[in-house]
Amino acid sequence: MRSDYDLVIIRHGQSEANKLNIFTGWRDSPLSELGVAEARAAGELLKREGYAFDLAFTSLQARAIKTLWLVLEAMDLMWVPVVKDWRLNERHYGALQGKDKAQAVAQFGKAQVHQWRRGYATQPPLVEVGDPDFPKFDTRYAGVPEGSLPRGESLKNVVDRVLPYWLEHIVPEIKRGKKILIAAHGNSLRALLKHLEGVGDAEIEGINLPTGVPRAYKLNAQMLSERHAFVGDPDEISQRIGTVVNQTKGA
Amino acid sequence: MRSDYDLVIIRHGQSEANKLNIFTGWRDSPLSELGVAEARAAGELLKREGYAFDLAFTSLQARAIKTLWLVLEAMDLMWVPVVKDWRLNERHYGALQGKDKAQAVAQFGKAQVHQWRRGYATQPPLVEVGDPDFPKFDTRYAGVPEGSLPRGESLKNVVDRVLPYWLEHIVPEIKRGKKILIAAHGNSLRALLKHLEGVGDAEIEGINLPTGVPRAYKLNAQMLSERHAFVGDPDEISQRIGTVVNQTKGA
Repeated sequence: MRSDYDLVIIRHGQSEANKLNIFTGWRDSPLSELGVAEARAAGELLKREGYAFDLAFTSLQARAIKTLWLVLEAMDLMWVPVVKDWRLNERHYGALQGKDKAQAVAQFGKAQVHQWRRGYATQPPLVEVGDPDFPKFDTRYAGVPEGSLPRGESLKNVVDRVLPYWLEHIVPEIKRGKKILIAAHGNSLRALLKHLEGVGDAEIEGINLPTGVPRAYKLNAQMLSERHAFVGDPDEISQRIGTVVNQTKGA
Repeated sequence: MRSDYDLVIIRHGQSEANKLNIFTGWRDSPLSELGVAEARAAGELLKREGYAFDLAFTSLQARAIKTLWLVLEAMDLMWVPVVKDWRLNERHYGALQGKDKAQAVAQFGKAQVHQWRRGYATQPPLVEVGDPDFPKFDTRYAGVPEGSLPRGESLKNVVDRVLPYWLEHIVPEIKRGKKILIAAHGNSLRALLKHLEGVGDAEIEGINLPTGVPRAYKLNAQMLSERHAFVGDPDEISQRIGTVVNQTKGA
């Protein structure tokens, strides 16, 4: 059993919206057939490689929760406690939610869309508080103060909610010796990765997390990355990272 | 949306071991194909009937957890917090675990097996502390004091762990106004039902819970049943209750 890791993060498997190239954000989109297969394969891989977990975290969104369930089931670890929190949700994409990425490029231009997708502090067009995409109208967020609910977020805004959650709720468990699994989203995990790996505001633009590929961390005394690596075959992972980069290239 | 209930309990869908008529107890056995369909149908039924939940409880066993996951997924309630606890586990069947029910009848006689299955305070033959069926060797129970881990339980023993858990962990949530779902096992739910419905020690023998059929409770000020009913078609439910009774009749 390998024990030289403290934390594994995994971005949910491909969703139906990923497949259609749609800005999903806080909307729910189920895993596609491929996404289900990716999550199962990740669980089987982690088990084969000797990983085990004492505690798992995920968002309040179906695609991340389902990914976590499939990973735990494949690992025979369904009994592991799971904490679900909105602060691990995907970035709220504001008024872009529900829009096709290529369409957005055609409408706003490639540079603007790239800026919205990758500019560290660039917020998308915000939704009004009466908009159905404002999370107040979703019962799952009933316990969250309205002032904390986003109308649209930059990656920096995501860092500003993920980081306190990491420090207050996850780090103490790691200090107790617990092995942690986090199943979440492209941007909530990029926010965490930025912190753990000390990536700069500009540099994070170019970093992508492939869907369904676990990334393992050994932390140092400062609870930052001492060592990290994707779990799995390096060639296959490079190919999957390429898929993410190419999502707006076609337009 | 119906709100005239506080609690819904559901016994896990048919497991592979149920299908083979095996005493499973604390061993894990996955849901059968029928069990998966039962759980999904229960979730769809609850949604159609207007039920919703704020908090869910289950055991540390795969078949109950999977049932809960399938119900929550069918209800679009995957985000609901889930608490897993060993005190909601199935009755530990001691040295009978892994044995075929009809075989046990042939070996020990129908009366003895009936007594083991249904006698309120009758313990099965206990396992030794070195036996693989003693839960100490399963990492999921690492946090449970060894003295609390069963070597075999009567229904009374199950009541003695389920009832304190109910009173300390679930009742306070109901008093806060939360709508609760519990997905668990034939005997941990019979233990709870006995308490809620005021069933006597002898009378509980004759009461069976069908797999995958939700039972809804409206509680009174004493946190006991004021009103309860299975959710679903009465004829179909009667037929499913018959299936449980007939499990040892054939031998």
